[in-house]
Amino acid sequence: MNFRVRPSTKEDCKDISRMIMELAVYEKMPDQVEISHKEVAEEHKSKEGFTVVGYALYFYTYSTWRGRSLYLEDLYVMPEFRGNGIGKGLLCKVAEVGRKKECVRLQLSVLDWNTPSRDFYAAKGAQDLTVSEGWHFIRFDGQNLDNLANEAPKD
Amino acid sequence: MNFRVRPSTKEDCKDISRMIMELAVYEKMPDQVEISHKEVAEEHKSKEGFTVVGYALYFYTYSTWRGRSLYLEDLYVMPEFRGNGIGKGLLCKVAEVGRKKECVRLQLSVLDWNTPSRDFYAAKGAQDLTVSEGWHFIRFDGQNLDNLANEAPKD
Repeated sequence: MNFRVRPSTKEDCKDISRMIMELAVYEKMPDQVEISHKEVAEEHKSKEGFTVVGYALYFYTYSTWRGRSLYLEDLYVMPEFRGNGIGKGLLCKVAEVGRKKECVRLQLSVLDWNTPSRDFYAAKGAQDLTVSEGWHFIRFDGQNLDNLANEAPKD
Repeated sequence: MNFRVRPSTKEDCKDISRMIMELAVYEKMPDQVEISHKEVAEEHKSKEGFTVVGYALYFYTYSTWRGRSLYLEDLYVMPEFRGNGIGKGLLCKVAEVGRKKECVRLQLSVLDWNTPSRDFYAAKGAQDLTVSEGWHFIRFDGQNLDNLANEAPKD
């Protein structure tokens, strides 16, 4: 299959928004998506058919132990286009971007039942730090986040 | 105990550098710290004794499902100052900063054997997403990250 990995543009917003929801469905948490289509698609110009079949969304983070790092928040390929190296192409492109920016780590999270993805990352040499070191992922949101902020010491 | 939570300045670099290493020792991974004291302490002016007894280091991230979020990379209080609400003060201050920036989540990672911290976060209402949803934390670094970058598709 002939495919190309390129930076996204405003024109991709509608496709990306659609795939964000598809990814949430795949991860069995579609009700967690609160970013509406309308919010991200304002700049969209319609195109013929699907030309965009996957996306990777990343941002920069910082390790006090090692320095600048990169976090891959989303990596998604539409089901009918899987098995063609597109996911690998996206992942490798993100790694290349990271190297150009002198990032020493590329990190991401994966669900334990998502064996295809876990096997793929492992085959590429990734460490599963939850298994090897026992890291747990913790979240505050909603009312409990608000409660914390309310208890902040005064300046 | 009388304490104050404030933004850090360049003058805090030496203290923070010291505590980054102390945290790594506490987490039983001191050999993973590759940011040398010299690299972060150039702007340091010496002070009398320890006035800085803890630190919180955070950055902004992004959830495609919910929007702007905040990640707490490090939260540390020196052992002899624990049990005085300083860690809670730091955490709550970070939550307050997040609220001002309209962050919808505050996230962090914790080691499974670190029961005091896990209990503290749980008491404040945090979800352990590794337990409740099965998220694993994955890392590429060193040679395997370089290998990925080398395999990136050409533009």
